Amino acid sequence: MHRTVIHLNEADPAKIQAVLQNTSNLFTALGEEGLQAELVAHGPGITVTTATLAGAFTGPLDDLMSRGLVVCACRNTMTAKGLSSTDLLEGVTIVDSGVAHLVTRQGQGWSYLRP
Amino acid sequence: MHRTVIHLNEADPAKIQAVLQNTSNLFTALGEEGLQAELVAHGPGITVTTATLAGAFTGPLDDLMSRGLVVCACRNTMTAKGLSSTDLLEGVTIVDSGVAHLVTRQGQGWSYLRP
Amino acid sequence: MHRTVIHLNEADPAKIQAVLQNTSNLFTALGEEGLQAELVAHGPGITVTTATLAGAFTGPLDDLMSRGLVVCACRNTMTAKGLSSTDLLEGVTIVDSGVAHLVTRQGQGWSYLRP
Repeated sequence: MHRTVIHLNEADPAKIQAVLQNTSNLFTALGEEGLQAELVAHGPGITVTTATLAGAFTGPLDDLMSRGLVVCACRNTMTAKGLSSTDLLEGVTIVDSGVAHLVTRQGQGWSYLRP
Repeated sequence: MHRTVIHLNEADPAKIQAVLQNTSNLFTALGEEGLQAELVAHGPGITVTTATLAGAFTGPLDDLMSRGLVVCACRNTMTAKGLSSTDLLEGVTIVDSGVAHLVTRQGQGWSYLRP
Repeated sequence: MHRTVIHLNEADPAKIQAVLQNTSNLFTALGEEGLQAELVAHGPGITVTTATLAGAFTGPLDDLMSRGLVVCACRNTMTAKGLSSTDLLEGVTIVDSGVAHLVTRQGQGWSYLRP
């Protein structure tokens, strides 16, 4: 079983599109049964987790979540931006701190990608 | 105990501010007693370690160092930019090569963040 | 023995130049005998692996490959851009998926750098 966290802290749509394509390719290459993956969004990257801002990325995100991707929103960022859990896309998970989650997962043996 | 290196190779003030905020959040989330963290600055990122260039970041850096952060300046970059140890902020540590330090620490089990 | 993958997914010449310089410094710091390193190029970063686009970087890449660097081109990206193996610089290796390769290598104990 491969396990990886994917670090997203940018709001540029071209970057988000590339990260989601990379994630899709990752599931295709390693197989849905062979990969645990979490997309950790914080800072400007939080936009991809919010219902009002994810926009054109909602469909691709839903598809990736159906393949097993866990999408994590950083609570520190949510607080800083005045976002509550009701602002998030359905299925998004909240973590207390995005960067702490990235460190914790690596300590548990997960790989790290920062596309 | 969590251990992580934080990779900084950009000089953009907005990026530096975000990286320092991320690092502060990391100490808050994991606790000063529970985290060993090193900020490894090289290439354009070296500015944050120099007394003349760190500017508005000196206060936040001092605060983070008092919480346990080790700030590492890359000697290769210092040489390329004609910087000597007297140009560095008080408390900054010199490593021979920033990228080699990042690889070595990971080999010792440290996590890696590139915000 | 140190082992690391180096992640390149940008086409900006200044970024490519910095990544190649970082890689050279890494070999110098850790020694050709002490380092296994793979440069994994995908997305816009694929340009560095192609004979027609690598341009001024061909010489530095050849030098790094002679020091032991393995340069990996992502087949997913090649397919998306209509590139075939004959478009690649001599000595470049093809991997099925750049991101999957980065995850797999970390699972084998390799470090990760994203300069």
